[in-house]
Amino acid sequence: MTDYIWKKASSQAVDERVMRFLAGDDVVLDRELLVYDIQASQAHARGLARIGVLTSEQANKMVESMNRLRAAFEAGDFLLDGRFEDGHSAIEAWLTDELGEIGGRIHAGRSRNDQVAVALRLYMKERLRTLASQCGVIAEVCLVRAEAEADHVIPGHTHLQQAMPSSLGLWWAGHAEAFVDNAALAWRIRDWLDASPLGTASGFGVNFPLDRDGVAEELGFPRLVVNPQYAQNSRGKTELRALDALAAATGDLRRLSWDLSLFASQEFGYLEVPAAFCTGSSIMPNKLNPDTVELLRSLHATIVGARGELEAVLSLPSGYQRDLQDTKPPLIRAFSRGLAGLALVPALLDGVQWNRQRLRKAVSPGMHATDLANEQVQQGRSFREAYRAAAAQLDSLAERRPEDSLEARVSPGGARNLLLDRLKARLQGLGKDRR
Amino acid sequence: MTDYIWKKASSQAVDERVMRFLAGDDVVLDRELLVYDIQASQAHARGLARIGVLTSEQANKMVESMNRLRAAFEAGDFLLDGRFEDGHSAIEAWLTDELGEIGGRIHAGRSRNDQVAVALRLYMKERLRTLASQCGVIAEVCLVRAEAEADHVIPGHTHLQQAMPSSLGLWWAGHAEAFVDNAALAWRIRDWLDASPLGTASGFGVNFPLDRDGVAEELGFPRLVVNPQYAQNSRGKTELRALDALAAATGDLRRLSWDLSLFASQEFGYLEVPAAFCTGSSIMPNKLNPDTVELLRSLHATIVGARGELEAVLSLPSGYQRDLQDTKPPLIRAFSRGLAGLALVPALLDGVQWNRQRLRKAVSPGMHATDLANEQVQQGRSFREAYRAAAAQLDSLAERRPEDSLEARVSPGGARNLLLDRLKARLQGLGKDRR
Amino acid sequence: MTDYIWKKASSQAVDERVMRFLAGDDVVLDRELLVYDIQASQAHARGLARIGVLTSEQANKMVESMNRLRAAFEAGDFLLDGRFEDGHSAIEAWLTDELGEIGGRIHAGRSRNDQVAVALRLYMKERLRTLASQCGVIAEVCLVRAEAEADHVIPGHTHLQQAMPSSLGLWWAGHAEAFVDNAALAWRIRDWLDASPLGTASGFGVNFPLDRDGVAEELGFPRLVVNPQYAQNSRGKTELRALDALAAATGDLRRLSWDLSLFASQEFGYLEVPAAFCTGSSIMPNKLNPDTVELLRSLHATIVGARGELEAVLSLPSGYQRDLQDTKPPLIRAFSRGLAGLALVPALLDGVQWNRQRLRKAVSPGMHATDLANEQVQQGRSFREAYRAAAAQLDSLAERRPEDSLEARVSPGGARNLLLDRLKARLQGLGKDRR
Amino acid sequence: MTDYIWKKASSQAVDERVMRFLAGDDVVLDRELLVYDIQASQAHARGLARIGVLTSEQANKMVESMNRLRAAFEAGDFLLDGRFEDGHSAIEAWLTDELGEIGGRIHAGRSRNDQVAVALRLYMKERLRTLASQCGVIAEVCLVRAEAEADHVIPGHTHLQQAMPSSLGLWWAGHAEAFVDNAALAWRIRDWLDASPLGTASGFGVNFPLDRDGVAEELGFPRLVVNPQYAQNSRGKTELRALDALAAATGDLRRLSWDLSLFASQEFGYLEVPAAFCTGSSIMPNKLNPDTVELLRSLHATIVGARGELEAVLSLPSGYQRDLQDTKPPLIRAFSRGLAGLALVPALLDGVQWNRQRLRKAVSPGMHATDLANEQVQQGRSFREAYRAAAAQLDSLAERRPEDSLEARVSPGGARNLLLDRLKARLQGLGKDRR
Repeated sequence: MTDYIWKKASSQAVDERVMRFLAGDDVVLDRELLVYDIQASQAHARGLARIGVLTSEQANKMVESMNRLRAAFEAGDFLLDGRFEDGHSAIEAWLTDELGEIGGRIHAGRSRNDQVAVALRLYMKERLRTLASQCGVIAEVCLVRAEAEADHVIPGHTHLQQAMPSSLGLWWAGHAEAFVDNAALAWRIRDWLDASPLGTASGFGVNFPLDRDGVAEELGFPRLVVNPQYAQNSRGKTELRALDALAAATGDLRRLSWDLSLFASQEFGYLEVPAAFCTGSSIMPNKLNPDTVELLRSLHATIVGARGELEAVLSLPSGYQRDLQDTKPPLIRAFSRGLAGLALVPALLDGVQWNRQRLRKAVSPGMHATDLANEQVQQGRSFREAYRAAAAQLDSLAERRPEDSLEARVSPGGARNLLLDRLKARLQGLGKDRR
Repeated sequence: MTDYIWKKASSQAVDERVMRFLAGDDVVLDRELLVYDIQASQAHARGLARIGVLTSEQANKMVESMNRLRAAFEAGDFLLDGRFEDGHSAIEAWLTDELGEIGGRIHAGRSRNDQVAVALRLYMKERLRTLASQCGVIAEVCLVRAEAEADHVIPGHTHLQQAMPSSLGLWWAGHAEAFVDNAALAWRIRDWLDASPLGTASGFGVNFPLDRDGVAEELGFPRLVVNPQYAQNSRGKTELRALDALAAATGDLRRLSWDLSLFASQEFGYLEVPAAFCTGSSIMPNKLNPDTVELLRSLHATIVGARGELEAVLSLPSGYQRDLQDTKPPLIRAFSRGLAGLALVPALLDGVQWNRQRLRKAVSPGMHATDLANEQVQQGRSFREAYRAAAAQLDSLAERRPEDSLEARVSPGGARNLLLDRLKARLQGLGKDRR
Repeated sequence: MTDYIWKKASSQAVDERVMRFLAGDDVVLDRELLVYDIQASQAHARGLARIGVLTSEQANKMVESMNRLRAAFEAGDFLLDGRFEDGHSAIEAWLTDELGEIGGRIHAGRSRNDQVAVALRLYMKERLRTLASQCGVIAEVCLVRAEAEADHVIPGHTHLQQAMPSSLGLWWAGHAEAFVDNAALAWRIRDWLDASPLGTASGFGVNFPLDRDGVAEELGFPRLVVNPQYAQNSRGKTELRALDALAAATGDLRRLSWDLSLFASQEFGYLEVPAAFCTGSSIMPNKLNPDTVELLRSLHATIVGARGELEAVLSLPSGYQRDLQDTKPPLIRAFSRGLAGLALVPALLDGVQWNRQRLRKAVSPGMHATDLANEQVQQGRSFREAYRAAAAQLDSLAERRPEDSLEARVSPGGARNLLLDRLKARLQGLGKDRR
Repeated sequence: MTDYIWKKASSQAVDERVMRFLAGDDVVLDRELLVYDIQASQAHARGLARIGVLTSEQANKMVESMNRLRAAFEAGDFLLDGRFEDGHSAIEAWLTDELGEIGGRIHAGRSRNDQVAVALRLYMKERLRTLASQCGVIAEVCLVRAEAEADHVIPGHTHLQQAMPSSLGLWWAGHAEAFVDNAALAWRIRDWLDASPLGTASGFGVNFPLDRDGVAEELGFPRLVVNPQYAQNSRGKTELRALDALAAATGDLRRLSWDLSLFASQEFGYLEVPAAFCTGSSIMPNKLNPDTVELLRSLHATIVGARGELEAVLSLPSGYQRDLQDTKPPLIRAFSRGLAGLALVPALLDGVQWNRQRLRKAVSPGMHATDLANEQVQQGRSFREAYRAAAAQLDSLAERRPEDSLEARVSPGGARNLLLDRLKARLQGLGKDRR
C-alpha cells in the first residue's frame, strides 16, 4: 500500500517528513471510523448496483468481502496501521486484494470527501447515542439516591457560604436533572445531524443518477445533506455541535466533581469518596487522595480544548480544504476520553458515603433566617420589612430544627416536593420516542 | 437608590471602587433584560395572589404599575442607569415609589437568583427565535438566487484549486442549506431551554406552595426547571448552548464572507460587492474596499470570544456564586452584535453582482477530467483505471463545454438536480410546527 | 463630521445600519487611545518637518493645536463620540477646524493603518507598565504579610486533602512569588513589543524619506517595526502577547481568590474577608457574601474570552484587512476590567483576617507522617522503607507539635527558610533596570 | 511494576477501568520527559550526597545506573510502556532492579510533584530553544530570498484588494521580521521560566537542608522557583507561556500559508508550491493540491486547542491537584506537532517558484494613485486635497511603471530601503548573547 493510487509522478520525490506530517495520526484515528466506513461502503456498492454501475453480483462480492474485512478487523487479525494512508485506502486495498479489478470499482461516484463525511456522521450518531445513554444512567443513579436520602439534612450554600438548610434529596435531584437535560440535548443534536452526505463526491455531485435516498435509508439516515458544497462546508460545524452536547455533560460533571472534592476535604468532612476511586501519595504516607474525582473535574478541559482546536481550523472558504483533516483528531480524542470518564460516574456516585451526623451538625441557627422572613410574609408583612426584621432576630433561631425547615419547603422542586416523578418521566420519554 | 436594600451596616464603608467593580456594566446590560424581568415579575405577582400571599387587588396594582414602568422604559422616559444596582432593584424601586409598602411584597417567594434566571431564559428564547428567523430569511435569499442562476457556470474549487465545473445554483444552494440547518438548530436549542426556573428562589425553594406551573404557563414555558439547585447550576450552561446556536450561524457566515472576499479580489474578479457595503481608503485614492464583508467574517470571533468567556466562568461547585454575574456580558454582547450582523446579510446577498463572463472563462479544460473518468466507469472500467486513463488524456478535454458537464451532473443535489424544493420544504416545516 | 473624508460618491447610499455595524464601538474605544494617537501625531508632524514635507512653523502649529485637543479631551471639554468615525478622524477634524488647510497635511506619509498600530503599541506599553506595577504592589503586600506571619501554622493541602503542616508565611510567599513572576513577564512582553510601526503607512511604505528612527526615538521606542507588511501582520499578534501577560496575573489572582473563597467558608473557617469587600443577600438575612473575591476569581474569564476573540479574528492572509478592527474591543475591554480588578487586590489582601486558633487546631496528627518518614531517611533508611514504616505508625504522631514540624522545614523556600530576601531582590531588580 | 509502591491496602480493589482512566496516556507522554527526569534525578542524587543523605558512593552508583537507563532508552532497549505507571516510577524501578535497596533512596527529599515540575521545565527550555532556532532558520530563508528578489514587482493588497505596487523583497522581508520576532519571544519566554522547582517536594519543602542552588546550577538553571507552593501553582501557567511562544510562530505560519494558498490558486497564479509538498485527488485526475500548505495553516489550531485545554484545567485553589496531570498531554502534543510542522517550512519556502511575469502584469494603473497623491503632497498640497485630486486622475496613471514606483519607495522598510541588515543583526544578536 505504499503505492498510493492517486500519487502523481511529479510528487514521487515527496520527502518522508512531508508524508509523515501529512499523514499525522490519521490511520490510527481511522480505527474508530473503519466500521462506519465499511458500512457506508457496502451501502454505496448496493446503490451503485441499483443504478447499473455495478452488477448485483459485483456488489454482492464487495459486500461480502467487506464483511470479511470487518470481521478480521474486529478479531484483531487485520491491523489498520502505517502501511495504509488511511482507512479509506485500506478498504480499497482489501477489496482489490480479494477481488482484483472489481475492487477498484467501489470508488465510482464518490470521493474520499463524502466517504469520510458519512463515516463521521455515523460515528457521531453512535457516540451521541452512547452519550445520551450514559447521561441517562447517571441521572438514574442520582434519582435513586435522591429518593432514598430525600430527608437527610445538609447545609445549603451560596457563594460557598452557608445559606439555608437543604437536603441530600435536593442535591441529588439537582444533579439528576442536569443529566436528564444533557441526555435530551444529546438526542436533539443527534437528530439534527442525522443526514447523509454520501453521494455528494468531492463537493459537486457526479454524472451518475446515484440513488442517494436509498443509500441513506439503508444507513438509517432519515434525510440527505442535499447539497454537495454543504456536505463539505458542514464538516467541522457538525463535529462542533456534537462536542457541544458532550461538553454539556462534562461541564456538569465538573460541577458535580467540585462538590465531591470540596465535600471530601477534612474541613467539610461531608462525604467519603469510595476507596476504589482514590490513590495514595508518593511522599505523604497519611494521604488517600480522590484522584478520580479530580480527573473527572478536569475531563471537561479535554472537551474544551478539542472544541477550540476544531473551531480554529474552520476559518476557510467553501469547499474541501485539507485543513479539514485536522477536525478528526479533536473529535475522536474528545469522545474517547469523554465517554470513558462518564462511564465511571455511576459507580462513583453509587459508592459515595455521606457523614450524615456531620452534615446535620453543620447547619447553624442563622440558616433559618430566610424561613423566618418568609413566615412573616405569610402573616402579611412585606418581604423587605420581614427581611429586616429577621436580620435583627438571628438570635431567636437557635431552637429551630432543620428538619422542620425542610418539612415546610413545599414549593414545587423544594425539599418537601422534589417532583422526582417528573424527572423520571422526562428521562423515560427520551428513551421511548425512538428505537 | 444608592441605599441598597440588602446592604449591611458592616459594609457601609464599602469603598467606591469596590462598588464600581461589583456593579460592572450590570445595569446597562439589564436594559436588554428589563422587559423580560417585568413580564416575569407580573406573572410572579399573579401567582402570589393565586396562593394568597398577595390579594388580587395588590397583585393587580403591581401588574399595572409594572405596565407603566414598561411603557416609560420603552418610551425612553425611564432610564435604567447607574442610579440602580441592577434592573431587579429598579423594578422594586419603581413599585415602592408608586405603591408604597405594597411594592416591597413583590420579592416574596423569590430571589434575585431565580429572577435573573427567568429573565435570561425569556431573553434567550426571544433571541433564538430571532436568530431562527434571520437564518430563514438568509436561506430564502439564497434559494431565490439559486433558482434564478441555476445554470450559470462557475469553476468549482477544492484546496482553493480549480477542480470541476460547477454552477451558481449549486453555490447558492449550498449556503441556503447551511442556513436552513442553522434555523433548525436555533429552534432545537430554543425548545431545549424552554423551561421556567421562576419559583426556585436562591436554590433551595421556599416555604410557600408557589404555583410554579401556572406562572410558567402564563410566561409561555411548557415545563419547569424542576430543581432549585439545577436552576442555579444551569446558569451559564444554558447560555453556552444559546451561543452554540448563534455560533453555527456566524460560523457559516464567516465561510460565506470568505467566498465573497476572495471572489471580490481583482485576481478572482468573480463578483462585485454592492457599493453600499464598501468604503474607501484613507491613503489610497483608487480603493473601494468590501469592509462589511470583512467585518461579517470577523463577526464570528465575537461569538467565539463570548463563548470562551462564559466557559471560563463556570468551573464552580453547585449553587449560586457571584461569578455567575459574569455570564451576562458575553451573552448579551454576542447576541447584540451577532444579530445586528446577520441582519445585514440578506441585502448584501441580494446585491451581489456576478461577472458571468469571467466565471465561465475561468473554467479550464482540465476541470473536465473527472467527468471523463466517470464516463469511462459507466462504460465498464473500474474507477481507478479510468482515473489513470483520464489523467493521461487531459489534452483531449479542450473541446468540452462546461454547460454540458453541468447538464450531466444528475446526482441528487448536483447541478442538474439541486432539490431546492426539499430545502424549501424543510425551511417551511421549521416555521410551521410552532406559533 | 458626518462627511467622512474618504467616502466615495458610489457609497453615498450607504445604509445607516451598515455604517453603524462598520463603526461598532470604535469611537468609544478610541477614547482609550486618543492621547496616544495625539502623541504619535505630534511626533509624526515634527518628523515631516525634518524632511521638509512640512515647514517647522506648520509642524509647530499642529503640535500646539494637538496640545489644545489633548487638554480639552482630558478636561472633558472635547467629547469623542458618534460625531466622529473614529479617533483618527477626530484629530484631523480638530486640526482642520483650528488650522484650516494646514490641518489636512498631517496625514501625509501615513495611513490610518500605521496610525492605529502606533497608538496601540503606545497603549500596550503603558498598560503593561501599569500591570507590572500592580503586580509588584500585590507581591509587596504578600511579602509584608509573609514576614509578619511567617511562623503561624496552617494545614497544608494537596488534592484539597490535608497533607502536611505549613505556615502562613509559606502561603503568602507563594502568592508573592507568583506576582513577582507576573511583573517580570509584563516587563518582558512590554520590551518585546517596544517597536515603532509609525511610518509604514498602509503596509508598503511611502515615497518620502521619512525619519522613522527619529520619530520612534521621540516616542520612546528603542527600535522600529522595520517592515511595513509586518507592521500590519503583527496586529493582533502583539495584542495577544499583551493579553498573555495580563492573563498570567489574572490567572494567579483566580488561584488566590479560590483560596480566599474556600478559606472563608464556614466549613474551613480559616479567614474573614474584609466587610468592605462583601455584600448581603436579597433573600437571606443571615448572609454576608464575599462577592468581590468571587468576581476577582471570574475576572480571568474576561481575559480568556478576549484572548479567544482576538485569536479567532486572525486567520487571514498578509496585509491589512478590516477584520483587524475587531482586535481593538477585546484588547481594551480586557485591560480596562483586568487592571480595575487587580487594583483592588492590595487592600483586599491587607484586610484579610486569619482565624489563627482554628488554623492551628485543624492540623491533625497524621499530617506529621511525612516528617517521620524523612527523619528515618536521615537515619539511613531508604525513603520507600521509611514511607511504609511511617504509614504503619500514624498513631504515634498524636504528640507532635506542628510548630516543631515547621521549625525543621529547612530546605530552601521551606517554612523555616522562606528566602523572602531573594523574592524582594528580584522584584526590586525589575524596577531598577528601567526608568 | 504493577505493585505501585504507594498503593494502599484500601485501594487494592481499584477497578481496572479506574486505573486506566487515571493513567491516561501518561506513560507514553513521559517518553518525551524521561531524559529530563533522569538528568534531574542524577543532579538530585548528587545533591543528596552533598548534604550527607546519601554517601558519595551511593550517589555515584545511582548516577551510573541512570546513565545506563538513558542509554538503553535511547537505543530502544528500554521501552517506557504500560508496565509502568509513569516515567518517575520507571526510573525508581530501574534503580531498584539494578541497585536493590539503595535505589529506593532516590526519592528522599523530593516528591513526584517537584520531579515532574523540574522535568517539564527542562523539557520546555529545550523545546523553546528549538523553536527559537527553527524561527531563526525560517527568517534566514526569507532574508536570503528577500535579498535575491528585492526588485521584483508584485501587486500589494489590503482588504484582499489590489492596493499599491509592492515587491517580493518587501513580502519576504515581512515574513522574515515576523520570525525574528518569534525567535526573540521564544528566548524571552525561555529565560522567564528558567528556574528550578526541584527540592520543593510536594509543595511544603522538606526537613533536610537540600542544596537546591547547587542542584539548579548543575542543571543549568540560573535561579530557583523559591517557594514550594508556587512550584505547584506555576504548573500550567508556565506551560501556557511556552505555548504562547509557540503560538506566535504557528500563528505567523498560518498567515504565510494563507498567502501561499491564495497565490497558488489558478485565479492568482502567482506561485507554484514545490511538488514535493503537494498530493493528488482521489477523484479528480487533473488536481495537484498544496496539502502541506493547508496543514501548515491549520497547524495553529492544534496549538490553540492545546492552550484552551490547559487553560480550562487551571481554575483551582493552591497546591497540587491531580487535575494538573492533564496539563501534560496538550503541552507535549502541541510541541510535537508544532515543531514538526515548523521544521518543514524552510524547504517549502526555498522551493516556492514565482510566476514573475504574471505578478508584474497583475499591477494595474490605479495602483499608482497613492504615489501620485504623495507626489503632489511633496509639491505642497495637503494630503487630503492631493488625495481627491488623485482620485480624479486615475486615468492618467496608465503609463506609469511599477518599477519606478518601487524605486521611489524610500521610507525606511519600504521597497527601496528594506533594511535587511537590521533584521539580520537583530537575529544574530539573539543567537549571540547566549550559549
